Amino acid sequence: MKLSESELTALARSALHGAGLGKEDAACAASILVTADLLGLHTHGTSRIVSYAERVPLGGIAPRAAISVERVAPALCRVDGANGMGPVVGQRALAAALDCAREAGIGAAFVRASNHFGPIAPYCLIAAEQGFATIIGSNATTTIAPTGGAEARLGNSPLGFGLPHPGGRPIILDMALSVVARAKIRDALKSGRVIPETWATDAQGRATTDPRAALDGFLLPIGGYKGYGLALIVDLFAGLLSGAAYLTHVESWSEHPERPQNLGHFFIAIDTRRLGNPEWLAERMADFVAIVHDTPRAEASIPVRLPGEMELDTLKRNRLEGVVIADDLHTQLTALAARA
Amino acid sequence: MKLSESELTALARSALHGAGLGKEDAACAASILVTADLLGLHTHGTSRIVSYAERVPLGGIAPRAAISVERVAPALCRVDGANGMGPVVGQRALAAALDCAREAGIGAAFVRASNHFGPIAPYCLIAAEQGFATIIGSNATTTIAPTGGAEARLGNSPLGFGLPHPGGRPIILDMALSVVARAKIRDALKSGRVIPETWATDAQGRATTDPRAALDGFLLPIGGYKGYGLALIVDLFAGLLSGAAYLTHVESWSEHPERPQNLGHFFIAIDTRRLGNPEWLAERMADFVAIVHDTPRAEASIPVRLPGEMELDTLKRNRLEGVVIADDLHTQLTALAARA
Repeated sequence: MKLSESELTALARSALHGAGLGKEDAACAASILVTADLLGLHTHGTSRIVSYAERVPLGGIAPRAAISVERVAPALCRVDGANGMGPVVGQRALAAALDCAREAGIGAAFVRASNHFGPIAPYCLIAAEQGFATIIGSNATTTIAPTGGAEARLGNSPLGFGLPHPGGRPIILDMALSVVARAKIRDALKSGRVIPETWATDAQGRATTDPRAALDGFLLPIGGYKGYGLALIVDLFAGLLSGAAYLTHVESWSEHPERPQNLGHFFIAIDTRRLGNPEWLAERMADFVAIVHDTPRAEASIPVRLPGEMELDTLKRNRLEGVVIADDLHTQLTALAARA
Repeated sequence: MKLSESELTALARSALHGAGLGKEDAACAASILVTADLLGLHTHGTSRIVSYAERVPLGGIAPRAAISVERVAPALCRVDGANGMGPVVGQRALAAALDCAREAGIGAAFVRASNHFGPIAPYCLIAAEQGFATIIGSNATTTIAPTGGAEARLGNSPLGFGLPHPGGRPIILDMALSVVARAKIRDALKSGRVIPETWATDAQGRATTDPRAALDGFLLPIGGYKGYGLALIVDLFAGLLSGAAYLTHVESWSEHPERPQNLGHFFIAIDTRRLGNPEWLAERMADFVAIVHDTPRAEASIPVRLPGEMELDTLKRNRLEGVVIADDLHTQLTALAARA
């Protein structure tokens, strides 16, 4: 069924409030997850409210967590998520990083004791709309084996970047470091196709084209040891430097929904207005975008795109026309909302 | 021939001084390029002095550039390289970013009007030895076509990260965003092998396994559109935000050695001592490294490694035993040194 942005926002807020969050925190988390749906990122949107809410009565997530922000240097914060709901912690940390950057030109927040915080794109978008460039990352439950390894020891950590474009469309890159998501391997198995040998390994850590063996094995990172290196770096910044869990210390929310994950994130923000005025930036961004768009095409019918472009087009359309939400999700969110 | 670190340093300094640099700047640049050789990164080491020096009499590089650092916010600098020699500009910018981070916890320098600054690993190493984590990038002459494009519009931009490990070996990732370097495709052509179709496209932007067609075409970035996205982001930070050239505006030093390239870099540094004391960090880094090293191996004889580990082993050995430099390079550097 199709809901307007304000209808979906009201429903998401009520559902989160029903799951135990205070009204302000519910609004804060809803904003991230609804933006995810509007961007077309439904796997990381309001559907997550259901899985987040399931962990609350088990003690896996603290709905009324006392999140604390400690400014350890003029432009640097440590954030203790106190096992709160991820998008609430994420919003607090983003705000802290932006406050630092507003004062010092650049600022950062390193976050511990958090949970899954939704996709990265909405945070980059919020920052870009206020003139900030961002680098944001999170660690995750282990699903990737190190290059040359035969056991999952690091997460498919998401990494995101945002660039403001005053008066235009920002550039946002939000990606995990695996070649493909697990769902793509499941799709191949269902339709009886082999997979490229760059997608995954079997349980012994050997590249495979068999989707069944791949589902028993590990996702491969982009560019082999390069993507493996990037995934490690994201965990070092998001998990190790923040004081959170890292690598195999991160608890799996699916295997142990009752345990705090102690997930870590990092948010780095740069105030672009200290580097040049918005007119200067707008002119350069427009020129940059035009150079990319004007690239001769490999196939005449397929345009050359910038990262995030399709998602931001979807956002614009969904804001005008409303966003389609699965019926069963609507039912589940309505049931949660009724608890409040 | 084999030279000790101090012999190679003395030779590199003299050669750079012979190329027109002041003694202090020559020492500054030599430190980066000699460290590159010690790390085994010979393509980006003292061999570059020869190509840098060739551009000086043509006006392509200004040997006595008045590099200026403007602190535009408490933790943010803009650096004008004034077309100086890349590693001199890079060292000044790194120092500026570290100064900011020392005061504010995090700091950054955005650099314009620079040139090729050597590999990124030496900068990460200098920062890590002083307790700073880093994110460093540079743009480069265009060699990569955007995903779906059939013309080189962005550079194979290097991106690097460093993490300090008090009392231990830092973790350093220094990578370009192509699957492989061009040299690997040349090797395949020489030995009559086909290449994997993930390495490069032909001149029409179509994936190819023919090394000859690939050399007429474009390098492919890691992970397809993901690596393309990362390369764009590095250029947006290093080129666009810094006020430097970006994308096709970057001049090619091989085609037009007489023209300033207006290359851009960015340096972000985080003072890890604001996040926790060195004992805390050392303990966490040792645990992190142990978890990765202890991963069961896919092949019993091949150890699981961390990024930069082999290069830092090479550095240690070369510092003890000296580093092998090609005879003709030694002759060229000696000839440059004789000019001083």
